[in-house]
Amino acid sequence: MTIKQLKVYSPASIANLGPGFDVFGVALDGLGDKVSVKRVSEPGVRVIMKGYEADQIPVKAQLNSAGAVMEAALSRLSEPGGVVMEIEKGIPPGKGMGSSGASAAGAAVAAVKLLGLTLPQRELVKLAAQGEAAVAGSAHADNVSASLLGGFILVGDGYDVMRMDIPDIGFVVVVPDVRYENKTKMARELLPKTVNLKDAVRNIGYASRMAAAVAMKDPVMFGRSICDSVIEPYRAGMIPNFHLVKLAALQAGAYGCSISGGGPSVFAVGEEPAELGKAMIEAFGDTPAEAYITRPTNLGTRVV
Amino acid sequence: MTIKQLKVYSPASIANLGPGFDVFGVALDGLGDKVSVKRVSEPGVRVIMKGYEADQIPVKAQLNSAGAVMEAALSRLSEPGGVVMEIEKGIPPGKGMGSSGASAAGAAVAAVKLLGLTLPQRELVKLAAQGEAAVAGSAHADNVSASLLGGFILVGDGYDVMRMDIPDIGFVVVVPDVRYENKTKMARELLPKTVNLKDAVRNIGYASRMAAAVAMKDPVMFGRSICDSVIEPYRAGMIPNFHLVKLAALQAGAYGCSISGGGPSVFAVGEEPAELGKAMIEAFGDTPAEAYITRPTNLGTRVV
Repeated sequence: MTIKQLKVYSPASIANLGPGFDVFGVALDGLGDKVSVKRVSEPGVRVIMKGYEADQIPVKAQLNSAGAVMEAALSRLSEPGGVVMEIEKGIPPGKGMGSSGASAAGAAVAAVKLLGLTLPQRELVKLAAQGEAAVAGSAHADNVSASLLGGFILVGDGYDVMRMDIPDIGFVVVVPDVRYENKTKMARELLPKTVNLKDAVRNIGYASRMAAAVAMKDPVMFGRSICDSVIEPYRAGMIPNFHLVKLAALQAGAYGCSISGGGPSVFAVGEEPAELGKAMIEAFGDTPAEAYITRPTNLGTRVV
Repeated sequence: MTIKQLKVYSPASIANLGPGFDVFGVALDGLGDKVSVKRVSEPGVRVIMKGYEADQIPVKAQLNSAGAVMEAALSRLSEPGGVVMEIEKGIPPGKGMGSSGASAAGAAVAAVKLLGLTLPQRELVKLAAQGEAAVAGSAHADNVSASLLGGFILVGDGYDVMRMDIPDIGFVVVVPDVRYENKTKMARELLPKTVNLKDAVRNIGYASRMAAAVAMKDPVMFGRSICDSVIEPYRAGMIPNFHLVKLAALQAGAYGCSISGGGPSVFAVGEEPAELGKAMIEAFGDTPAEAYITRPTNLGTRVV
């Protein structure tokens, strides 16, 4: 029996997590997108956007991370007909909280179930990453894998993703009200082509410690491993008062603090995320900012 | 009561382990140096070298990794008198098997016990690393920490070392008969000042996977994480036939293969280390090479 319609929920995520640029991702609790899909006789993919800043996201399937995924999935079928997708944005787009990745992951799971595809994990990740490629120009898998699979993600070569359960700890993501045209692309263009060997070595050390901390279920060591000498210095400039905000988080008791994905959101990890959020918002000064108090989740995209 | 003389054993080690340049180290079973120390009334440190290529290692305390450590330790005391050290080299020096590091670690533990010092782990690592500084020009802590503490070592900033038990798996270290004046210094001079961001990201991914594999006690994932895009390409040139040797190891069933520390030794990890060693020696061709079949050990430097 073919499923004619269904709805999935896909969590927000933080990529990079400090030392693990393009490698690490973590799924966040209580913040996510919903993707409803329906098989229709009309060919192609029709996208309807609802929710958070939905009017700012293009609905044209090729330019929408979920739409692009569904188009790619649909092209694998020989049957006629199309899909109508309704996306309820619960994640602010363009802020570094994996908004496009969550929609893409939701679309991938919805597509697989709706269209009756059977894909191994690697292919599912690859399918979802096509959504990132559509909106960000590069098919990075850190956010999509975290949204898809939940927990802590370690992306390897060629969509070879390792997933681990993440120990529980407080997170806060503070979103400053700054806007950029195509932020993800801009954040990528700020990146250096080369990095100092000693900075690379520092990140290798902290990233290894973070991965070990997750495997050993040590949330404090996890938080203390949030140190980035490779990317943060280049992207800090796109976030007003970044260094003051980070300092405020650490002084308020954060174990670690860095840029969330491609920014401009800043995340911190600690026992009292609400206190951290307050201190960080204050440090943003004239820039209005909003704090999302959250925790990591081991649940990925699922039918709801 | 003051101890007047004692003897310690300190294992060989492999630093870097592929992706973790200046970060990772592992202690090796069945291969090590012995350091005997005796308190004497004559001031200063007198070093006597025995064993493997002992005549090639300077005995002048400032130029000998163990001697430099003992001098530094002795300078902390106000009491008069000196130390006679006898070092029995079981580890070939200058090959990338942590020979100077093992002697330095042995000297550090021997000094602490002989002189009645009380040092926290960080200070002990720092003391032993002074031996590396004396012979290699940089006080890197990867080899000395592995020799000191045993197991798998993750070196952080400022001698802040994390130690984990390492799961058991076969290792082979193949030592080609090539000689360089001050090899460690040369190996450091071959290093690039900057690395491509994408190479750094690959190493961050593999190093994280290796650390997680150790924490999860997965020896196969550990072996498969031996991939280095940052250092190996620069140092490969100092090892004859390096790429053929690595290929031979992988074709013979190795999970991974890379340069051992600063080289010129090449190590491989797999179920049948003797088979790997045979294939690697053959691939060295005209360069005579010797294989050490070993395993990791969780025991560090200890009194014997």
